[in-house]
Amino acid sequence: MAKLSRKERHRLLLQRIKENPFITDEELAEEFGCSVQTIRLDRAILDIKEVRERIKEMAKESLGKLKTISPRDVVGEIIDIELENYAIATFEPQLWMTFSNSQMVKGQHIYAFAESVAMSVIDAKAALIGVANIKYKTPVFANDRLVARAELKKKRNNKYIVWVFIKRNSEEVFRGKFILVATDDENKENTGQECRTYEDRN
Amino acid sequence: MAKLSRKERHRLLLQRIKENPFITDEELAEEFGCSVQTIRLDRAILDIKEVRERIKEMAKESLGKLKTISPRDVVGEIIDIELENYAIATFEPQLWMTFSNSQMVKGQHIYAFAESVAMSVIDAKAALIGVANIKYKTPVFANDRLVARAELKKKRNNKYIVWVFIKRNSEEVFRGKFILVATDDENKENTGQECRTYEDRN
Repeated sequence: MAKLSRKERHRLLLQRIKENPFITDEELAEEFGCSVQTIRLDRAILDIKEVRERIKEMAKESLGKLKTISPRDVVGEIIDIELENYAIATFEPQLWMTFSNSQMVKGQHIYAFAESVAMSVIDAKAALIGVANIKYKTPVFANDRLVARAELKKKRNNKYIVWVFIKRNSEEVFRGKFILVATDDENKENTGQECRTYEDRN
Repeated sequence: MAKLSRKERHRLLLQRIKENPFITDEELAEEFGCSVQTIRLDRAILDIKEVRERIKEMAKESLGKLKTISPRDVVGEIIDIELENYAIATFEPQLWMTFSNSQMVKGQHIYAFAESVAMSVIDAKAALIGVANIKYKTPVFANDRLVARAELKKKRNNKYIVWVFIKRNSEEVFRGKFILVATDDENKENTGQECRTYEDRN
């Protein structure tokens, strides 16, 4: 790789961090053929924190934008979001999420992550998954660093079609199509059942 | 309903409990047009325990038959199982499984129940979900009594097609088709990735 200009390196750095928020200074230095010190300096200039801090900060900013899902219900961290368009989230499955007889993470935890990011992208008071067509492409292990991207593909009345792609580095480990149904009061006749809301309960 | 003979009532009682393991003596009495005392006597004669004990006992018997999933990983209770044929499980979602802004149970917990019963029906050392096409038909609330039935529809090499139906009383709340992939050592080249087993870890 030819030596990059500082301007070009800054552009690429922002792009790579957006693509993979888990990328470390060491990985960036190797990719760009420069020293780790250079990357740290670049980050200081661009006001980008190191990986852990970065994710925490991005998550904090995004939480305020959530409409359908409560921050308490989010699986992983939502690090970037444009409502009714896309959402990006990170997740590191823990050891307790694996099967007892293997190190593989149970599908349910990857599903939970996908469901959470799919719900975060839509703008409704409440919603439920109606249909999901999902594919697990390769096993996931504890401490894998997963990045999910949810995209709202279509919206019609109270139905939303959302695609979710989950990657580990550049490898896709899961993809799914979700049809979500908004269960706002005005739409409750469409859920097939009376929708008891939190307000009714109290 | 015409008064049933004792023999007929016993036959129906066994059938109804098989269909809905959560059925109470009160419900059976009402269905059969007899007293609760009569149902209790019937259960004593047929050696059927009351609802909680019954489920606990059925679960205990079934756990020993599991091959693919460890008892520790089971969601709910497996109460009847014939490996490579069918499995029946019960599950009562708890309040913590609901969304913070509604009383509805998150899809991920119903999915986890379905995944668990789908895996329990197959006979492999380990397996993962490859594909799932699922449909949530109506919202589920905390303390709903769910009964799932998983049926192995097809088996070819290391792939299994399992259908799962979840009902609340006689109402279907969820149905899904799962394609499971056995990840036994001899099949590990088919998972798309080296399968680290529990034995490798220790």
